[in-house]
Amino acid sequence: MTTYNFSAGPAMLPKSVMEEAQAEFMDWRGRGVSVMELSHRGEDFMALAQEIEADFRDLLTIPDHYHVLFLHGGAQTQFSAIPMNLLGDYQSAAYVNTGFWGKKACVEAARYTQVNLVAETESTGYLSVPPQSQWSDFSNDAYLYYVDNETINGVEFSFVPETDDVPLVCDMSSSLLSRPIDVSKYGLIYACAQKNMGMAGIAIVIVRDDLLKRKPLPTIPSIMDYRKQIDMNSMFNTPPTYAWYMAGKVFQWIKREGGLHLMEAQNREKAKMLYDLIDQSDFYTNEVEKRSRSLMNVPFYLPTPALDAKFVAKAGKQGLVGLKGHKLAGGVRASIYNSMPIEGVNRLVSFMQQFEQLNKKV
Amino acid sequence: MTTYNFSAGPAMLPKSVMEEAQAEFMDWRGRGVSVMELSHRGEDFMALAQEIEADFRDLLTIPDHYHVLFLHGGAQTQFSAIPMNLLGDYQSAAYVNTGFWGKKACVEAARYTQVNLVAETESTGYLSVPPQSQWSDFSNDAYLYYVDNETINGVEFSFVPETDDVPLVCDMSSSLLSRPIDVSKYGLIYACAQKNMGMAGIAIVIVRDDLLKRKPLPTIPSIMDYRKQIDMNSMFNTPPTYAWYMAGKVFQWIKREGGLHLMEAQNREKAKMLYDLIDQSDFYTNEVEKRSRSLMNVPFYLPTPALDAKFVAKAGKQGLVGLKGHKLAGGVRASIYNSMPIEGVNRLVSFMQQFEQLNKKV
Repeated sequence: MTTYNFSAGPAMLPKSVMEEAQAEFMDWRGRGVSVMELSHRGEDFMALAQEIEADFRDLLTIPDHYHVLFLHGGAQTQFSAIPMNLLGDYQSAAYVNTGFWGKKACVEAARYTQVNLVAETESTGYLSVPPQSQWSDFSNDAYLYYVDNETINGVEFSFVPETDDVPLVCDMSSSLLSRPIDVSKYGLIYACAQKNMGMAGIAIVIVRDDLLKRKPLPTIPSIMDYRKQIDMNSMFNTPPTYAWYMAGKVFQWIKREGGLHLMEAQNREKAKMLYDLIDQSDFYTNEVEKRSRSLMNVPFYLPTPALDAKFVAKAGKQGLVGLKGHKLAGGVRASIYNSMPIEGVNRLVSFMQQFEQLNKKV
Repeated sequence: MTTYNFSAGPAMLPKSVMEEAQAEFMDWRGRGVSVMELSHRGEDFMALAQEIEADFRDLLTIPDHYHVLFLHGGAQTQFSAIPMNLLGDYQSAAYVNTGFWGKKACVEAARYTQVNLVAETESTGYLSVPPQSQWSDFSNDAYLYYVDNETINGVEFSFVPETDDVPLVCDMSSSLLSRPIDVSKYGLIYACAQKNMGMAGIAIVIVRDDLLKRKPLPTIPSIMDYRKQIDMNSMFNTPPTYAWYMAGKVFQWIKREGGLHLMEAQNREKAKMLYDLIDQSDFYTNEVEKRSRSLMNVPFYLPTPALDAKFVAKAGKQGLVGLKGHKLAGGVRASIYNSMPIEGVNRLVSFMQQFEQLNKKV
């Protein structure tokens, strides 16, 4: 029985990626050593890093005036790095809070500057993305920050904010590479790898070069200074080489599969299968407004917490794992990143139908 | 032909560790998924993290009033994290500069406080560790910082500084787990993993609990605040789970092999083989004072840079790789961490003897 892993991250990886990595685990490209045993400053790893960046730029059609950094520290390091790098002479930064991760980024930013909260849905239970027409003014802020997809409540932006000259900064941890995007609309995009780009331990930052003219805070740790990392090709210190390599394998896989247009089509199909079932059922509930529903994380509730728990346990026994909702949200959550095949979602849909039949009150 | 990898880090890993990791790469403990695909907040990974910490504490006999953190960011993140966490109300911190890494840590610390440079060997070419009797006073400093082993010039402390009430802080990136140490003499010890403890992408910090009463700098990024990481069992954010797992595999391997006393005996034997050959030869040179020679990194020079390069190239063709000296030092460097078997050093010694015969002027 194939196991399907619906974990929100670290998440499942494509089977062919895992098979390739396993096959060359101890002898990479005939070098007689593992890629994780290579010096990051040697010719082999330097060339690999260049190949990987080229594939990534190709997938997203990243313009030349954007730098791409592969960094330690996961996404949350960027909660601090972004204000420390980009505040410059500004007195405030604008944030949109549409979920747990946006809120956490606000709280960290408030340690460094005044946060101008231009829109929030915390007070209404994180079930929507307010249209930009309802946001307050942010024209004097250092940047506008938002989270493209909130993994816990399953809320995703269906539009790109218009910000004129204010740089747009986006946490795409759980959506980058799930669909094509227009990088040129952004000042900075960042994402951790462990959703759509590989294993935990590396994060990618895409930053427009003009933003680097802003003076970083004097107390910024050197390792978090984008300028210093750019000067060293993301090797200011020993980078997480194996996570970098695995991200490269995933980029190659996406290219082989057909690129980001194909990823988007599949992701829309997978999400539709689950939301259709939920909407047609009285047993399963998802209250997120339809236009803001996440393509990546589908949270839902059964009639009682006891049934949620029973569902997760029974599903696990049938090889459908990682379905427990985040502790802050409860319920069930199916994370269906790029790597989740349609067959996995089919299996989950069948299980949901059977479970409903067996457990609903008539 | 077996390849032996003398890279300074990322370095070679024990063969049995690599074989085990490869075998369970896609199905860890029968879960049907890779360990890198597990949620870090799930029962399985949480239990694994506890096992790993217990093994690590056991190997080093770490007292209960020390916390052990498994962190992102490599060792250099600690260059900033240490002053940001430990300065408290102090106006200065004491540093010993016996090599490139100590110097770099000084430079970063000077961004946060006054650095009291109590001893340095930069002016004499980084060839020794001055005895503590020659150091200047550090009794009013926040802590005393030194680097146990300097990888580039191959200089290692043969003693533990005596600091009375001043907390002793040590970068053991390239020596931790290479021999037994008395943790109770230290306030803080840290090390990246990619020398003696696994793959790049994780660092370990051992910190005495009383130091956490010091108030961190107000601008410290939350992710670098030891107190916040302790509260979250090193899972303030998604940790580098695979690097954590690999470190655990290495700890298990060290225990199976016989622990740190055995590691030390083997490391002394390997280093002696190389230094004896160098000292008996007019062809190879190492000018580090004998009592401060590194057990982990053995740098040496041939009569000319052209011969250094020829040596590295020829050795590579015979499966002895990673021998090129650091660009700042030139020459040749053999890094012989725990994972390097005696057979590897034997092969290198034989090659050195042959190369000398073929290339020395008579």
